[in-house]
Amino acid sequence: MTGSDGSGGTPTLAALTDEVGLLYGADWNPEQWHPDVWREDVALMRAAGVNLVTVGVFSWASLEPRPGRFELDWLDRVVDLAHDHGVLVDLATPTASPPPWLGVLWPSARAVTADGVRMSHGSRNHFCPSSPHYRERALAVTRVLAERYGAHPGVRMWHVGNEYGQVCWCEHCAHEYRAWLRARHGSLDELNRAWGTAFWSQRYDEWGQVIPPRAAPYLVNPTQALDHRRFASDQLLALYLEQRDVVREHAPGVPVTTNLMGFHHPTDYRRWAPHLDVVADDVYGDPADPSDVVRVALTHDLARGLAGGAPWLVMEQAAGAVNWRPHNVPKTSAQLRLDSLRAVARGADGSCFFQWRASTAGAERYHSALVPHAGPDTALHRAVVAHGAELARLRRVVGTRVTARVALVFDWPSWWAAEEPASPSQRLRALPQVLAYYRPLWEDGVAVDVVGPDADLDAYDLVVAPQLHLVEDADVAGLRRVVERGGVLLLGPFSGVVDRDAHVRTGRFPVPFADLVGGSGEEWVPLPDAGVDLRSDLLGDVRVHDWAERVRVDDGEAVAAVVGGDLDGCAAVVRRRHPGGGQGWYVGALLPPDALAGVVRACLDAAGVAGPAGVRAAADVEVVRRGDVTFCLNAADRPRTVHLTGTADGWHDLLTGADVAGDVPLAPHGVLALIERTP
Amino acid sequence: MTGSDGSGGTPTLAALTDEVGLLYGADWNPEQWHPDVWREDVALMRAAGVNLVTVGVFSWASLEPRPGRFELDWLDRVVDLAHDHGVLVDLATPTASPPPWLGVLWPSARAVTADGVRMSHGSRNHFCPSSPHYRERALAVTRVLAERYGAHPGVRMWHVGNEYGQVCWCEHCAHEYRAWLRARHGSLDELNRAWGTAFWSQRYDEWGQVIPPRAAPYLVNPTQALDHRRFASDQLLALYLEQRDVVREHAPGVPVTTNLMGFHHPTDYRRWAPHLDVVADDVYGDPADPSDVVRVALTHDLARGLAGGAPWLVMEQAAGAVNWRPHNVPKTSAQLRLDSLRAVARGADGSCFFQWRASTAGAERYHSALVPHAGPDTALHRAVVAHGAELARLRRVVGTRVTARVALVFDWPSWWAAEEPASPSQRLRALPQVLAYYRPLWEDGVAVDVVGPDADLDAYDLVVAPQLHLVEDADVAGLRRVVERGGVLLLGPFSGVVDRDAHVRTGRFPVPFADLVGGSGEEWVPLPDAGVDLRSDLLGDVRVHDWAERVRVDDGEAVAAVVGGDLDGCAAVVRRRHPGGGQGWYVGALLPPDALAGVVRACLDAAGVAGPAGVRAAADVEVVRRGDVTFCLNAADRPRTVHLTGTADGWHDLLTGADVAGDVPLAPHGVLALIERTP
Amino acid sequence: MTGSDGSGGTPTLAALTDEVGLLYGADWNPEQWHPDVWREDVALMRAAGVNLVTVGVFSWASLEPRPGRFELDWLDRVVDLAHDHGVLVDLATPTASPPPWLGVLWPSARAVTADGVRMSHGSRNHFCPSSPHYRERALAVTRVLAERYGAHPGVRMWHVGNEYGQVCWCEHCAHEYRAWLRARHGSLDELNRAWGTAFWSQRYDEWGQVIPPRAAPYLVNPTQALDHRRFASDQLLALYLEQRDVVREHAPGVPVTTNLMGFHHPTDYRRWAPHLDVVADDVYGDPADPSDVVRVALTHDLARGLAGGAPWLVMEQAAGAVNWRPHNVPKTSAQLRLDSLRAVARGADGSCFFQWRASTAGAERYHSALVPHAGPDTALHRAVVAHGAELARLRRVVGTRVTARVALVFDWPSWWAAEEPASPSQRLRALPQVLAYYRPLWEDGVAVDVVGPDADLDAYDLVVAPQLHLVEDADVAGLRRVVERGGVLLLGPFSGVVDRDAHVRTGRFPVPFADLVGGSGEEWVPLPDAGVDLRSDLLGDVRVHDWAERVRVDDGEAVAAVVGGDLDGCAAVVRRRHPGGGQGWYVGALLPPDALAGVVRACLDAAGVAGPAGVRAAADVEVVRRGDVTFCLNAADRPRTVHLTGTADGWHDLLTGADVAGDVPLAPHGVLALIERTP
Repeated sequence: MTGSDGSGGTPTLAALTDEVGLLYGADWNPEQWHPDVWREDVALMRAAGVNLVTVGVFSWASLEPRPGRFELDWLDRVVDLAHDHGVLVDLATPTASPPPWLGVLWPSARAVTADGVRMSHGSRNHFCPSSPHYRERALAVTRVLAERYGAHPGVRMWHVGNEYGQVCWCEHCAHEYRAWLRARHGSLDELNRAWGTAFWSQRYDEWGQVIPPRAAPYLVNPTQALDHRRFASDQLLALYLEQRDVVREHAPGVPVTTNLMGFHHPTDYRRWAPHLDVVADDVYGDPADPSDVVRVALTHDLARGLAGGAPWLVMEQAAGAVNWRPHNVPKTSAQLRLDSLRAVARGADGSCFFQWRASTAGAERYHSALVPHAGPDTALHRAVVAHGAELARLRRVVGTRVTARVALVFDWPSWWAAEEPASPSQRLRALPQVLAYYRPLWEDGVAVDVVGPDADLDAYDLVVAPQLHLVEDADVAGLRRVVERGGVLLLGPFSGVVDRDAHVRTGRFPVPFADLVGGSGEEWVPLPDAGVDLRSDLLGDVRVHDWAERVRVDDGEAVAAVVGGDLDGCAAVVRRRHPGGGQGWYVGALLPPDALAGVVRACLDAAGVAGPAGVRAAADVEVVRRGDVTFCLNAADRPRTVHLTGTADGWHDLLTGADVAGDVPLAPHGVLALIERTP
Repeated sequence: MTGSDGSGGTPTLAALTDEVGLLYGADWNPEQWHPDVWREDVALMRAAGVNLVTVGVFSWASLEPRPGRFELDWLDRVVDLAHDHGVLVDLATPTASPPPWLGVLWPSARAVTADGVRMSHGSRNHFCPSSPHYRERALAVTRVLAERYGAHPGVRMWHVGNEYGQVCWCEHCAHEYRAWLRARHGSLDELNRAWGTAFWSQRYDEWGQVIPPRAAPYLVNPTQALDHRRFASDQLLALYLEQRDVVREHAPGVPVTTNLMGFHHPTDYRRWAPHLDVVADDVYGDPADPSDVVRVALTHDLARGLAGGAPWLVMEQAAGAVNWRPHNVPKTSAQLRLDSLRAVARGADGSCFFQWRASTAGAERYHSALVPHAGPDTALHRAVVAHGAELARLRRVVGTRVTARVALVFDWPSWWAAEEPASPSQRLRALPQVLAYYRPLWEDGVAVDVVGPDADLDAYDLVVAPQLHLVEDADVAGLRRVVERGGVLLLGPFSGVVDRDAHVRTGRFPVPFADLVGGSGEEWVPLPDAGVDLRSDLLGDVRVHDWAERVRVDDGEAVAAVVGGDLDGCAAVVRRRHPGGGQGWYVGALLPPDALAGVVRACLDAAGVAGPAGVRAAADVEVVRRGDVTFCLNAADRPRTVHLTGTADGWHDLLTGADVAGDVPLAPHGVLALIERTP
Repeated sequence: MTGSDGSGGTPTLAALTDEVGLLYGADWNPEQWHPDVWREDVALMRAAGVNLVTVGVFSWASLEPRPGRFELDWLDRVVDLAHDHGVLVDLATPTASPPPWLGVLWPSARAVTADGVRMSHGSRNHFCPSSPHYRERALAVTRVLAERYGAHPGVRMWHVGNEYGQVCWCEHCAHEYRAWLRARHGSLDELNRAWGTAFWSQRYDEWGQVIPPRAAPYLVNPTQALDHRRFASDQLLALYLEQRDVVREHAPGVPVTTNLMGFHHPTDYRRWAPHLDVVADDVYGDPADPSDVVRVALTHDLARGLAGGAPWLVMEQAAGAVNWRPHNVPKTSAQLRLDSLRAVARGADGSCFFQWRASTAGAERYHSALVPHAGPDTALHRAVVAHGAELARLRRVVGTRVTARVALVFDWPSWWAAEEPASPSQRLRALPQVLAYYRPLWEDGVAVDVVGPDADLDAYDLVVAPQLHLVEDADVAGLRRVVERGGVLLLGPFSGVVDRDAHVRTGRFPVPFADLVGGSGEEWVPLPDAGVDLRSDLLGDVRVHDWAERVRVDDGEAVAAVVGGDLDGCAAVVRRRHPGGGQGWYVGALLPPDALAGVVRACLDAAGVAGPAGVRAAADVEVVRRGDVTFCLNAADRPRTVHLTGTADGWHDLLTGADVAGDVPLAPHGVLALIERTP
């Protein structure tokens, strides 16, 4: 399955990949360079196998140097040049970074912090998302571009805005926030109920009194804050949509997207994904942290989940170092390749970079690029060329999918609600929890789809919800059905606590699921530093730190229980086996990694799920099966071995063209892309 | 002695406790709940022995949903319901948290930071204490309540505002600050002298130039800052007083109070206490820190001191966890009881909690309550019920006092002055010093009154002033008289340094007391990290870190002296024995705990003071005698033993009803309340 | 050499020191005290040998208590009193700290932060450097003083402003910034090129759009920021110059200065120094940090470099403790003397202190002074008197110079550019690098001149540029000539990277010097925490942390190379020996101290430079030769020994008057000032 061909239906990535195979490219910002350099650029692109460039992301001031005066000739030349050299163009609306004139003409078009500080130009993304002036001018430049390039044969994708994320607390936004709240809550009475304004004397008597959560002397109303996060994400989505509509009008059939940023806190990408023709993600793992590869893999599975399982695209990654960390360890050439192939293994049909040629000026001049300051005769650029060649050898995976029997539930509003100030403990953090439950699955090579709580879960044998703190009534049934139909549901601590308005559900927790898991709790117990001891036949005896809960066993079993102290006898892990074969598990503690892995593996066993057949990998080796290709990716900077079985005829490595079998060595950060040989 | 009966004279707590014994209760915020829940509430209160509820603290928006439109019917029902069920009502003026409409109608009624950021509603306590609009509306709602409920038989106490603490730097406040300064200093010349404006060219030429210490590029004038702290405290007190006066007019004879917060930095409670009919304190010890019980005990002794020795009231404490720390370890049931009884032992005639029923919404939904989210069938609520029963068994202590022969001097302006920026060292901190000198007294079970420097000290054999950095001329004589009349005076480092305007007293320090202690200094010496060695017959040889002083012995003795280095031979502890038996001690160093305990115990010996007779307690066991009841409180989470002697007939434990003698075991966090058996 | 006599030519320090010898003095702020105290002051000054006082630094409000009303009588008395007692007066323009009335009358005369917070009075230095009102009033008070005291025989130096350093982001400053940018860049097109505004859509279309780098959502344009630093320094210099011109008009021949602050980030003192008649520096080493003496020595060499080798002046230092650190360890009496003599050894012709008499009020009341709160009968003041006497014994050094064959290149714009946010690593810091390369020179007693990259380097055999990140085209030639003429050039990591506009130079780095050093790089490599191993015959095998570079050897030699990992074989230190005897060295790593010392010492050997002859000092003993006096300063707080040879007749210690030879003991923090005995 590969998606549409572009004629009618929803435009997809397949329109491009069917033509050129896996996409390989970069942001190309030629306005920084003399046209002579452009010609060198396209020659180098061809030599490197680059087949896609994103153009114009930051070009507004170059395209419209003063209000209403457009200068597009240079862009004509750039687009034609790429097209003439067989490089597809992903054309951006340049609306992320308005020219200085916008905020000078209309100061209210600049964003304001919760403290009332108005942003200035001089950086990027300083606009207010609710400013009528900004939106009008952004649509105007979008329209000019769409009219000019909508039918250009070289422009094969559109890239609206860039890394949406700005949040503003100004009066424009307050106005829009109120409109959004009216739509959500219907009446002021309902808003007062939802926000719990009876506490702390916050009752609103007129809509005009309602404001974003601005600077206040103490804790802000948590539902006011939660709704503001929802609004802020929706407001940015509205910007995307209105520009997309202009593009689509002039470029029907051409896919439109914007670049997401994985687990990006301000934007609920589940609400965005249905509106993106292509899920495109910016991926910046930290080469200084060897364990960060697990987080990156999880992020890829999220991207694939947002795409509904269809191929997605790495829109940005670094070829070497980034520049925005305090200490920016560069990727090695082996890591450049490893990281790119990890994304392909997990469903990406393209691997693009920021940016093509390293800037000599501006705030990102120390960010690596495919062509370094020292030019093409460099280790980095040689790796770029080599990688282009091997991506061409992976055309077989284009359009194929990863099949998963395990779902990991993740939800932005739940993340937001769980990490409001004034929760029981800041040591219980949503993303680390999600990652902790994901890690054993990654280690075992078990494919995982990251889905929302409202997803159709019927295809999954195991559903893991590590930190579903907020769960809406409407989603409870779907999660319960997992167990009812014989599947396994695993819930992490502090789950099921609040409803859509972040109100605590009264009763014994996890309130909507306590009967499913056979146990129930009455108190969250952030622990003194010494922690507490657990006893468990399954997990062994371990010490738990930071978090436990006062949980009793009802009609389930205690898989692990606290020994000693005030919580003596409380369950730390409780499970109920249901007559129909289903199992409900609840973990009421922050388990140490090995114990948590024991829980996850017991759930895998109960669900009958295991890693890919025929491949037994050493520690640190990530195994992913996509379509009929099994990728083995060595996350370690030392050699590892993979043991292959499972087929009488042995395996074939698409990257090297070699046939392999038995114990196969993997170089540090090395990769295999295997298919089973057929006789 | 028990205080007044409420008919004429100053209203006191006795009016309530004579009727119902020790008070036991909570903040009740029923506006969060359906009236059906109210009826369950009062039934549960009766079952738990709750006899006092604080109502209406955050009800302004419920009582006056729009300006001038009052809706009090619901409160009528609440007050009647409590009254009908025998629960006394402490009715609050809801003025801590104004409704949104106040700050929308009058933006200047919202507080402004030193940086000029104006606070918004959405939290609580966002008002400007000097805003005429706020004050007018606060008095109006107070008047409406006082008129309606002043004579209600169920309303037995009034609770004005809540946790006063907001400070504001706005123009209203600047205006009020100038008025306050005029009253304090009389003339601009005197202000210029007091503030030392000859330095750094700060001389004021007109009153209108004088402002609060707003954002500035470098250190702010310390006396300007000190006077602003004084003003800010007085300004909040003025709010209390004007509301109290309205209440008193309509509810003569009913005690009026507000809830203090122990060693709360912004408010000089010594100036507040004379205006409170009941000293009521909010107490939030940290269950995660086993040593915090000493600080809490000290805080209780402060509350008792503020009450002039009369019974006081714990107005708020947590039953389990709070929600505002980064990591909120809950109290165990044993700690709930232990903490409550500690307050009673140290003079409280009541023990109240925040809040009755756990909120499901709002910023405090994760703060524990007497009725948890999981309902009354929980460990916590069962402990609440049990504790209500045992409080009833302690009626004997109602109205009784703790008798102390040791005074600990503590003063807010001295605290403020000592911790201004640009002092010799931030490692010398006022509260830790006070606590360090208090700890040995706590360990020995020696009763201590925490008093101001202007207190009548004649009743005390030992007066300890650990950190009396600022001392007014008027208070010097009282402190000197301690020694002159044969008592012992112990002064900590950096004491007696500045006068009321925070001007350094010139001469050899401690300037006003150097002759009393028989030694004098010329330089404060924050130490290099290695510290310095002391030699002392009394204390042994110890190493001192962070702070010493260049002190010479005059006509006293060096109890400890520095050995080696640049300070070789300087006194670290100096003492002078006076002919009349008095002793003056000065400690010119930050002594390690054991050495400091040696100093304190030598002073106790010299003063002839010791802990309670007949009780020899193990470490961690706090012993306090109130009236004729000796409380033994085990601060450890493991068993301890108390050895009882001193009476031929043994002892009787009021809590268990058992007779005990000899070695008596104390459970972890356990408590005894003993009286001597009479034959 | 020694400078002018004051009659015509440029006024210099010699006009004073020829008369009174080494200067010794303090800031005298008598407006804080009753005139009776003034008389005690001058008597104590005479007794202590004090011969210079700085008067009036913070006196604006005392001199002009309201706009236009001047009260100078008190200053007449002060100046006359000093003069009558033979104490020279350095008269300040009081413009650093405007009176409250200035900012009240003209709020726009108060500075604004990048976040838009306007400063208030109450501290000091709150003015906006671009405010026309401030500048007009500052000139007015300056003119009044200059007219009144320009010809006063007691006023022998003028001190304009104080510790210039304030930066402001207000509209006045934006206007001035634009004017400055016009002058620098000529056209908006050129500004757009220089700032690289093609990136991130920052192109300016009108001058009015150009602003200082105010609060923005993300990284600010680095050249906008760099130019703003340049502007801010120049703007402060303009204030100095316009006041100086007024002074000079009325006090021709009297030297004018202001007090610098060593490596003070906001002010490019290389641009200031040519306009100062006397280089005067404020020096606040940290007595708590034994290694800080090396930094202080470097700072003195910077001051001497700014003075072009001529004598300079310590304008401020502490006699004991300062008050602005979190923990202010005081100097001992031995350190007071040691620090003062270190400055003299390194070229200072005077040693002054802040301040004469300790304030009792105001923000600096805990800053030490020559007369402590406890009065003159104190250890500190006795040391002051003793030191005055020994300074008189050093008259021989007045006007003499330190001769250096090593230059250390330091540049403010390079510092600014290297530490912009978003560089490869914040662990590579400019000043620590400079200090690291300086330390071995300090240890070996090698004299070093700290110079700018545009200096005439022909006199130096070794030129060390530890961190010349930014180097202008115009300065490249001078640095290259060092090698071309047979000298040694040593470049540290990340050098030669950017041009004057902070644009990265494309090509293999260090781009302008790669051929000189015989190696070239293509990637900066901030290291993972484990670091990398180096192998080196010269330096031994060492482990490098934090920073290496991907450097290859071209036609030079690898002095040290990486072993293992991704950088295996890359050069860490590369050197090229040139036919004419010159050598170019490039260090592409953050070497550990011993290895770096090895590099520096190899460069010293190659250049034929060594420490002072005849003196072999133990570790911690700093040896400096000034004129014909060799100073040995013991930085340790324990005894050390110096071994003297080199003259048959032995040596003579000017401080004690003793003849010494062979092994001479140095007390803790002790000093020798030796001359060779002549037969």
